[in-house]
Amino acid sequence: MGVAVSVKRVALAQRAARLTPSMPAPEPHGVISLGSGHGSPGVFPDLNEMARVALTQYRPETLQYGPTLGLPEMREWIAGYMKENGVEGVTAGNVLVVNGAKHGLALVCRLLLDEGDAVVVTAPTYFTCIPIFKTFGAGFIEVSQDGDGMVVSELDDTLARIQREGRPMPKLIYNVPDYHNPAGVTMPRERREALVRVAERYGVFVVEDSPYRRVRFEGEQQPMVKGFDRTDIVFVLGTVSKLVAPGLRIGWIVASTEMIARLAQLKSDLGSCPLTQRIILEFCRGEHLDAHTRRVQDIYRKHRDTMVAALRRELPEVSFAVPHGGYYLWLTLPERIEADKLAPLALQEGVEIIPGSRFFAGKGPKGLGAPKNHMRLCYSHAEPEEIEEAIKRLARAVRSIES
Amino acid sequence: MGVAVSVKRVALAQRAARLTPSMPAPEPHGVISLGSGHGSPGVFPDLNEMARVALTQYRPETLQYGPTLGLPEMREWIAGYMKENGVEGVTAGNVLVVNGAKHGLALVCRLLLDEGDAVVVTAPTYFTCIPIFKTFGAGFIEVSQDGDGMVVSELDDTLARIQREGRPMPKLIYNVPDYHNPAGVTMPRERREALVRVAERYGVFVVEDSPYRRVRFEGEQQPMVKGFDRTDIVFVLGTVSKLVAPGLRIGWIVASTEMIARLAQLKSDLGSCPLTQRIILEFCRGEHLDAHTRRVQDIYRKHRDTMVAALRRELPEVSFAVPHGGYYLWLTLPERIEADKLAPLALQEGVEIIPGSRFFAGKGPKGLGAPKNHMRLCYSHAEPEEIEEAIKRLARAVRSIES
Repeated sequence: MGVAVSVKRVALAQRAARLTPSMPAPEPHGVISLGSGHGSPGVFPDLNEMARVALTQYRPETLQYGPTLGLPEMREWIAGYMKENGVEGVTAGNVLVVNGAKHGLALVCRLLLDEGDAVVVTAPTYFTCIPIFKTFGAGFIEVSQDGDGMVVSELDDTLARIQREGRPMPKLIYNVPDYHNPAGVTMPRERREALVRVAERYGVFVVEDSPYRRVRFEGEQQPMVKGFDRTDIVFVLGTVSKLVAPGLRIGWIVASTEMIARLAQLKSDLGSCPLTQRIILEFCRGEHLDAHTRRVQDIYRKHRDTMVAALRRELPEVSFAVPHGGYYLWLTLPERIEADKLAPLALQEGVEIIPGSRFFAGKGPKGLGAPKNHMRLCYSHAEPEEIEEAIKRLARAVRSIES
Repeated sequence: MGVAVSVKRVALAQRAARLTPSMPAPEPHGVISLGSGHGSPGVFPDLNEMARVALTQYRPETLQYGPTLGLPEMREWIAGYMKENGVEGVTAGNVLVVNGAKHGLALVCRLLLDEGDAVVVTAPTYFTCIPIFKTFGAGFIEVSQDGDGMVVSELDDTLARIQREGRPMPKLIYNVPDYHNPAGVTMPRERREALVRVAERYGVFVVEDSPYRRVRFEGEQQPMVKGFDRTDIVFVLGTVSKLVAPGLRIGWIVASTEMIARLAQLKSDLGSCPLTQRIILEFCRGEHLDAHTRRVQDIYRKHRDTMVAALRRELPEVSFAVPHGGYYLWLTLPERIEADKLAPLALQEGVEIIPGSRFFAGKGPKGLGAPKNHMRLCYSHAEPEEIEEAIKRLARAVRSIES
């Protein structure tokens, strides 16, 4: 018997499976994970009082269906957040509350992508976005990245060539401009503006994925890419996951009202959770957020400093740019060391890392193949003493290859 | 300037927009809503203690990223729920936790549907599913419904004709077999089994949408459609929205492990909210659920009885089947009364109803056009005294048409 009809997208889903970076399971006993982008449990705030208020004072709202677009006050708060970040003209009408930023990305893909479309990503790029794009049947155009983020002049050249050759333009440019995942770099103002101008010129949407913006340790806050957007081509993805707690599953999309209306039609879930929206609203409005933000910055700055010092001491042969915020360090190993081979050795030594190959969507910016000697280290989740120990273990793994 | 690239699915989304039944906004002052499928605020349980436990005892779990498939204990609980409902062989591996049943339906659509595919629905069908299917580019095959639900012999004839004519089979059959939304009818055992056998014969998947199953007032509980599934062609959609509270946004899909793995790849949201999963788990496992279920049944039975009595008294010319569970009454008006014209008159009288036309996906089972003299009344949300008053107002609106 059995079912003869074809299941759509099986091939796509299976192709994506090889790269699906599901959040790692809890590490085996004794293994220290520098792999996942989990938050440190110690930074999560106490939300008991906010939950009590949400479940008593706001009970008719929090246990009922909520509005498809999100709680009006939540959307107002997000619009205010955009304004605080220097983006003028954003109102609640430009905001859709979603179930985390990744859910937002999937909705933007549903809105924009047809199978066979191309998307522009940096090389390396955030690895969770790769299978998401693949499940929508997208291909990749990879653009190089330097210490200032995406090399926009290369993007410009690439799009000019596509236009000259009469090939279809990519549908969108995906980027993490602040404290890039995995590269840790931040785009300066000029490059952000140039990115928007290039996107305008060729008619390509921009997705500004901005989870780490307030996890800033030092240096000037750069303006948001959205701030340079004159023609409503930038979609912003935001979230409370990296600053407050991932477990609430609350994120948002900021875009033109027209795009928000279309995205809401595709959302199909009868609204994101009003209970967790109200909890986070109570937290953000109760003046807890500023103190919490400083605490998060202080804790993760210490994590980063610990990791940077340990690397310089234990592994002087690796190079990296010191990130001024975010969760990640992107290491360049000596060329003879392949991170794909190092990762299992490191695990044997008791430290989990993610090899750099996972962060390349294709064959690299010039089709020359993804470099093999990178890895991403996450300093958010492990405690400082664990980070110290983990880097020692990693150094032992490197030595075992070199000997 | 402006962006020249095409936004995918705009046409589809706009087409769907005309039918998008977003949850109605709160009714204007004084208007009683018999439109929405909202729960009665009085039936929502007090979840304060469960939230406190979730945010203290389970804090590292509830504020962190959760597993993509759902909390293991939540999936175990759902597997147990399936077993309690007579479906053998379901384990946690057959369960994906999602953000409400509609989110589950959208995922099943992403897995199965290509643009241009057909789906089978009843006439009438649950109206929120119509725009969801449309955003995936699906067309509709409508099958008649009688007092025993979907007329499976008609489905069989329809599929046989499609096969004979060499046309593509529909991809799935969507149905609400228990206390159907909007028709209020329940499929007896024989018809459920026949549905699965027909689906097997022609190789079509079945989606058993089961939100109201435990909102049962009297009569025998029929076996789940999934219970007759020998070849893993039935997807079950479940939810806590209609029994506990919609605000938690927790639902699930039950299917083969292979399909669950593929659906999880398409989910792209890094897991449903672990906090609300833990809250509902604490509620369900703390032996609150049985007492709560009886309370929900008692309250909504009273709502239904109030509405049935009021209709018989105030509008003896309308006919309806008395539902043995669920939230809805499906009225047949005298043929001369068009519900689309009645609805605005009813609103003027101070009662909101949804005309039956909204519940037909196309031109009716035989392409003869959707009947115009139906409406759906929801008795869950309004209190009994409001229901009494609302039916009086509705009767005045009917009289105003007839005079």
